[in-house]
Formats: sequence, C-alpha cells, structure tokens
Amino acid sequence: MLESQRVMTMGATTALTPEEQLANKYIVELKKAEYKTGILDPSTHSPGYHIFQLLSEVNKSPLFKALRTMPKGGVLHAHDTAICSTEYLIRLTYRENLWICTADEGCKAIAFRFSKEKPTLKAIAECSWEPMSEFRERRGEENVRRYLLRRFSMYPYSTFKSNNQAWNHFMSIFILLDGLLCYAPVWADYYYRALKEFYEDGVQYLELRSLLPELYCLGEKKLTINDTVQIYKDTLERYMAKNPNFIGSKLIYAPLRGVDPPVVEKYVETCVALNKQFPTFLVGFDLVGQEELGRPLIDFVDQLLKMPEHINFYFHAGETNWYGSTVDENLIDAVLLGTKRIGHGYAIIKHPFIMSLAKKLGIAVEVCPVSNQVLQLGQDYRNHPASHIICQDVPMVISSDDPSFWHALPLSHDFYFAFLGIAPMRADLRFLKCLAINSIKYSALTTPEKVIGIQKWHKQWIKWINEVIKTKGQLEPREDKSLKK
Amino acid sequence: MLESQRVMTMGATTALTPEEQLANKYIVELKKAEYKTGILDPSTHSPGYHIFQLLSEVNKSPLFKALRTMPKGGVLHAHDTAICSTEYLIRLTYRENLWICTADEGCKAIAFRFSKEKPTLKAIAECSWEPMSEFRERRGEENVRRYLLRRFSMYPYSTFKSNNQAWNHFMSIFILLDGLLCYAPVWADYYYRALKEFYEDGVQYLELRSLLPELYCLGEKKLTINDTVQIYKDTLERYMAKNPNFIGSKLIYAPLRGVDPPVVEKYVETCVALNKQFPTFLVGFDLVGQEELGRPLIDFVDQLLKMPEHINFYFHAGETNWYGSTVDENLIDAVLLGTKRIGHGYAIIKHPFIMSLAKKLGIAVEVCPVSNQVLQLGQDYRNHPASHIICQDVPMVISSDDPSFWHALPLSHDFYFAFLGIAPMRADLRFLKCLAINSIKYSALTTPEKVIGIQKWHKQWIKWINEVIKTKGQLEPREDKSLKK
Repeated sequence: MLESQRVMTMGATTALTPEEQLANKYIVELKKAEYKTGILDPSTHSPGYHIFQLLSEVNKSPLFKALRTMPKGGVLHAHDTAICSTEYLIRLTYRENLWICTADEGCKAIAFRFSKEKPTLKAIAECSWEPMSEFRERRGEENVRRYLLRRFSMYPYSTFKSNNQAWNHFMSIFILLDGLLCYAPVWADYYYRALKEFYEDGVQYLELRSLLPELYCLGEKKLTINDTVQIYKDTLERYMAKNPNFIGSKLIYAPLRGVDPPVVEKYVETCVALNKQFPTFLVGFDLVGQEELGRPLIDFVDQLLKMPEHINFYFHAGETNWYGSTVDENLIDAVLLGTKRIGHGYAIIKHPFIMSLAKKLGIAVEVCPVSNQVLQLGQDYRNHPASHIICQDVPMVISSDDPSFWHALPLSHDFYFAFLGIAPMRADLRFLKCLAINSIKYSALTTPEKVIGIQKWHKQWIKWINEVIKTKGQLEPREDKSLKK
Repeated sequence: MLESQRVMTMGATTALTPEEQLANKYIVELKKAEYKTGILDPSTHSPGYHIFQLLSEVNKSPLFKALRTMPKGGVLHAHDTAICSTEYLIRLTYRENLWICTADEGCKAIAFRFSKEKPTLKAIAECSWEPMSEFRERRGEENVRRYLLRRFSMYPYSTFKSNNQAWNHFMSIFILLDGLLCYAPVWADYYYRALKEFYEDGVQYLELRSLLPELYCLGEKKLTINDTVQIYKDTLERYMAKNPNFIGSKLIYAPLRGVDPPVVEKYVETCVALNKQFPTFLVGFDLVGQEELGRPLIDFVDQLLKMPEHINFYFHAGETNWYGSTVDENLIDAVLLGTKRIGHGYAIIKHPFIMSLAKKLGIAVEVCPVSNQVLQLGQDYRNHPASHIICQDVPMVISSDDPSFWHALPLSHDFYFAFLGIAPMRADLRFLKCLAINSIKYSALTTPEKVIGIQKWHKQWIKWINEVIKTKGQLEPREDKSLKK
C-alpha cells in the first residue's frame, strides 16, 4: 500500500541515472539530517517558522546551499518590480537625478522620481520633494540604507493582523517603487539585473507577469506601453548575447484586476496589439491584485472571451483561504476560460473537481510557498495545501512571486521550503528533478523552444550532479567508500 | 459546475423539512453576518484566531448561541479525564480528605490524593503533602482558584514553541488530575457530571475513550479495572434513569501506546475479558498518547490481530502535520487493521488512497478542530484539512477530544469553528444536520440502538427547530413577515 501510494506521488516515477542516484544519496542525507532534529524537537524545524524569523539560519543550512546551486529550471510566476534583491534597489537610489518625496518630517518615503528639476508630480500622499543625495546626507547614509531595507520589504515579522493588512503594505511597496523603477533606463537595468540574479540562483528561464506601465524619461516625456515591451525585449537580447546558456524569458501581460469590465476589454485589445508586435515574446494574459478586493473573473467573462485562441491565459486564482467565496471560485472560471496554468491555486484542494481537471488537462499549479506565508495564507509549511497537490500528482511548479519583498533568493528559498516542508519526507532528487522539468514543460515556450530549453537545463544539471558527487566525496570520504562497494 | 461541486459536498443532499428550511434561513443569516465583517476585514474573523484569544467573544456570538442549543447528536472522540468544566474540577478540590503535594514553596502543584492521613505515596517529582484546605488557606482561596483554573488547562496562549511542548504540558495535566479523579467516588461523580454537561450542551450520546485506571479508595485499597468499568456502567444507569431522553454512552478501552508489543498483547487480553463482562458497554479498542513519541501501529500488528472480530478498533491515526512519517502512515495500518473510525486523521489529505477507502468503507474521520489548534497542528481554521474531507464527502464527525483543557464547552465550540471556519461558506443547516446524524450513524451503537438514538435526537431536534423559528420571529418581525409571503 505504501508503495502504491508512493508511485502516485509527484516525481516518484522520474528516472535517475547512476550518477543522479549517487548525488541523490547526498541530497537525501542532507535532508534527513534536518528532519532528524526536527522530529525530535519540532521547535527546531525550520518549515514550522515564518521565513523572517530564520532567514539567516536557512541560508546556513547545507541542504539549502545544495539547492541553491541546483539548476532549477524556470520561474513561471513572478512580478515585474518585485524580483531583484533589495541591496540592488538601494544601489539604484544612488543614481543621478533621483528625488525623494517624504512625509512625517522626512521619516516616511512616499515617492521617488528621476528629474533634472524638482518634480512637480503629485504623489499619492502629501509630501515634500528633495534630491535623494540631500535626503541621504541629512538622515545619514546608514540610517537611510536601513530604512529602505525594511521599507522595500514586508519585514518585520508579525506586523500584520490579517492577509488584508499584509496586502495593503504589499501594494504600498509596489506603489513606492513606481517612480524608482518606471524610469526607462532603470526599467531596463532592473530587468537585466533580475535575469542575472535569477541565473545565479540556478534559474535559466523567467516568465514575467508585468503591468507594462508607461515608462518615463527625464523631462516628463512618457513612453508607450509598446516601448516598455520593446525595452524588455532589447534587454533580454542583450543578456542572451552574453549568456548563451540562459534559456530566455517571456512576458505575460498582467494588468490590475480591480477595474470595470470595459477596462478589461481595453486590456484585451492592448494584449492583442502587443502580441501582434511581439508574437514570440508577449504571449499570455493575466489579471493581478488581491483577488478578494478586485472583481472575480466571472465579471469579465464576455471581455475575456474576446481574447484570440493563440494568446494564453495564466490566471491567478484561489489565492485565499476562504472556501466558497468568489475568490476560490475563480478557480472554476479560470479553468472554464481555458487557463494554461493556475497562479497560486491555494484553495484548489477545496475543489476536487477542478483538481482532477487540472490533472487531466495538464494545467499546472504555480505554487509560491514563501509568498503564501508572508501574505498570511498559512503559517507552517507542513500544512501547505500543495502537499495534497503533490500526493495527487497534479502538475505543479514552484515559483517565488515577489522574492524581493521578503529578502529571499529568486527561487532557492521556495525550493527549500517546498522540499523540506511541503513534500513527503521521502521525496528526493526525483521530486526536485521533476520540478525543474515541469517548469519548462508547463512554460509558455513553444515545443522547439522547450527542446532547446531542456537541453540547456540538462547541460547545467549534469554539471551540478557531478559537482555534488565530488563535494560529497570530499566531505565524507568514508561514506564515499561505502558507496563503491 | 458550481452545482455539481456543491452536490458532492458533505451534507449537500441532506433533506430539509419546510420547518427546517425556515430555521435554516435564520442560521444562514447569523452565519452570513459573521462572514460579512470577516471578508471586509479578516482580522475580525474568529476562525483566523487561536481560541484562547477570543473565547469570550465567541461565547457572545449569536451564531454560537444558536449552535449551543442545537441537538448535535453524539461525541465520538473524547478522553476520560478531560471532559468536565474546570469550574467543576475546582469544586472537586473542596472535597473532604483531599491532600495536595506541592513544590517550589507551594507554588507548583505536583499531585493530589484523597487520604485520611498524610499520603505516603511518592509523586512524580519531589514535593510535600499538606491538606488541600490548609493549602487553600495559606495561599488564599482566590489565588488557588486562579492558579488551578490555569494549571488544569492549556492556557495561556502562545506558551508552546512546538506541538511536542504542547503535548508535554497536555500530558502533565492528565498526570496531575490522576490523584484527584482516580478516587473511586470522584470517578463516578466526574462521569455523571460529564454526562450532564454534555447533555446541557446538546450532546445526547458519549463514546468515551478511557485508560481504565485502577481506582483507589480511602485507606489505599485498590480496585480492579473491572470495578472501573462497573462504576462507569452503574453511573450511566443512574444518569439514564433520570434522563430518559439521553441516548447513552459506551466505552472504548484506550490504554497508552508508548509501550512494548507484549504489553499490547496484555491490553488485548484485558479488552477481551472486559468486553465479555460488559458486552454492550465496553465495545472498542484504541491506543492513546502522542503518536510521534509512542510506537506506530505497525509494531503491534501481531498483537492487535488477536482481537476478536466483534470488538472494533477506533484508532487514533495521523494526528500530525508530518508527511511520510511513521505517524501519518499509521493511517494506512489503522485502515488495514479494520478500524471503524479514524481518530483525528489530520494527515489524511496527504493519503488520497486512504481517503477513498474511508469513503468506500464508511470509516468516519473524527475531526477535533479545537484540539488540533491547541495542540499546535494548525492555526487558522480555514486551513484545516477537514475542508478537503468535506468537499470529498468522506464520512466525518466533529468531536471535542479534551474540551476541559481548553475551557471549551463539550461540543459547541468545535461545531462553531467547523461550521464557520472549516466548512464552505454556503454550508448551512443541511451540513449541521448531517454532522448530528453522522455522529449516531458512525457510533458504536448497535443498529436497534441507533434507531432509538435517532428517534431521541430527532425529538430534540424538532423542538429546537421550532424554538429557532420562534426566536427568529421574535427578533426580526419584519423578516418573519417576508417569509410568510
């Protein structure tokens, strides 16, 4: 019975080469070591905690370090301005011509803007503009750095009494970053930097959901939404030229859901036009923002059905712990609308019919463990509903959503918690390999692109497997000998 | 699709009479009122909190008050010395001949004992005996009351860093209560009182798991385990004579699991002998204690298989958030051993094969929402795995486990959180009626007893329905008019 259960579980039937089996022994050892103390004393088990409480501990974990170097495939669920490290964001604030608008006698950052002169722009709250350099001098460089490190994130732990409050702060970070990142030159650099950070974290492909804002230049000149996509595309080409082993990146146009149906009709038209101009780059559509507060998908059905067949939907749906609300029922409409993947799908286990459809139709659930925790859907990773998705072998990928806002790496922390907290104890390299392959299999890449993608990933994968075997040999010579028997 | 989902959900096809439909409108109104504020601001939604944080708030909720008076059927999962109110326990400490053994200069209660003379018994820790009356005088009555109110419970909130720590304290309450409750006269009175408190809370049947300790009398005389059962039986008969509408009570012999296989063999022999002496009263077997620390069922298979067919198993299994451990895999062995119900089954959603067997074989899961929260398996009721059990329509009953230790009512608080936090938003009186009927359907009552049981419950149920309709009429005359249209 155990065996029949095991083979039904995600990744269980993934084949391993003899080399992979060797590496697997090491990965399993590392995992077991963390479990061992965890079972004896669950208060030491990291998946039982909020990531903010033990980020630095996790970073020291040998298992985490191994996962960090692992080629993990692609990230299929991430948002445009929430993907670079906070350190990089702070570095951006040193750029020339940046102004900051602050309130509460300079204690509260309200907005940023690049400008030759003092900006005339009205921010979302009363505030006064000053050059960033002056602000930094006045408040002290280290103070500003520490302030921004926190202000650009969801830290500290336990600030929020509910997921609505968490979402409020979450959205406020996006709003604050607007003026800093929507400056055309920075927009390009930010994306370039993201590709770099993702690649360094073992991610070779990025499917980005973007609001596609109209960017600005010095002198208030506004660019068009087509320029935004063009900048993305040019930047990607520049990055690919220098990093031929990178698989690539594609865009999902993902404007805000909190609008009226006629606006969604405009969204669809924009998406069609952009896809016409960038047919291989801008390939999908989604709506973003807290599902509870926006309208449910069902309100937009007429408009969404106007989307031509070749542009795919990748809807956020069921990012909630409500059961029987319009939010978790978005899952039904998403599937009826033909979504290719489900963003989050946290509530999917309350909808077994949708789960079985997802399995039959190959609709992958984009699980974002850390995001779900920080946005207060759940606490202990061992209770994450994805355990149930795994045991039913419903297609699943692990993504990071907005790693910037929780000071997490582009994908490693999510992999760590998924592997140690959500997956079964005996999930091993098969599970991890399956996750990596899934991230290409269920991506928006075309079939020929997927073939190349898998090749590029596999090349890195083999390299990594050999490194793991070598490292293991160095660290534990006795163990290595016993393997040779 | 929504409709096809709905009819698959637990209770959805339960029929309602016209009167029940009227009452249902009121219940749904009360439920919606709580949801309404909860959706606007989840930080006000009680199922998102630990029960200790808002017990008095919940007690004021109109929905809770309605559920409190509702005839809820039976409690099928509760433990012998954890079912009476703490106020009653404190009252017991006023009985004649009671001694207390304290440490830390009287600040820490270690043991109780009824005795004419100073007890010579060695407690589990170093302590000194004094008459309870002297202790109370010395420390002050109100101080002692407040101390015991807490010491006999899992309060305060957030004392424990893990479920192991919670379990440690949990077991220490049982141990402390031993000397107070295992005194033969008190044992009888405690059970009588429990039946009374349960009945007052709308519970007409109690299936009690008991360690069946050997009780003591004054003068150190020890009774046998048969006497313990006899006392239970006599007390029940005494209670039934005065309360003919009560359905009854049965025993499940449930000794500690943290033992070696030969001891389990003895358990089985004891169980067989007791069942021979009390064939209609002691009808089942289980093992209790934290599953993580005791041995898994698989270690006892040979011994357990010696149990004759007519004595049923009602195993605790999967009371954990581990996945792939010996603990959640107890679920497999429990079902293979032919268990009639599953105690807790918190991890069952990680074992879809077991879930489908439970559904096909009619094995009910005994879900104890508050217990799971207090023993730190989960926090937010909306994430409780029973949501998934409900949407799959796997047989389920709601029980309270050890309501005494969390100052909860015998069943009402568990019903409240199950109804408002775990069930779908649109779950209504059908769901509640189904829960009540399930608690008789899946009980250890014989078929003729079940028929009588359902009749007794139904009599109260109709009375309650009429009261609800009347109350509603009084409270909202306008609403009532509109119903008459």
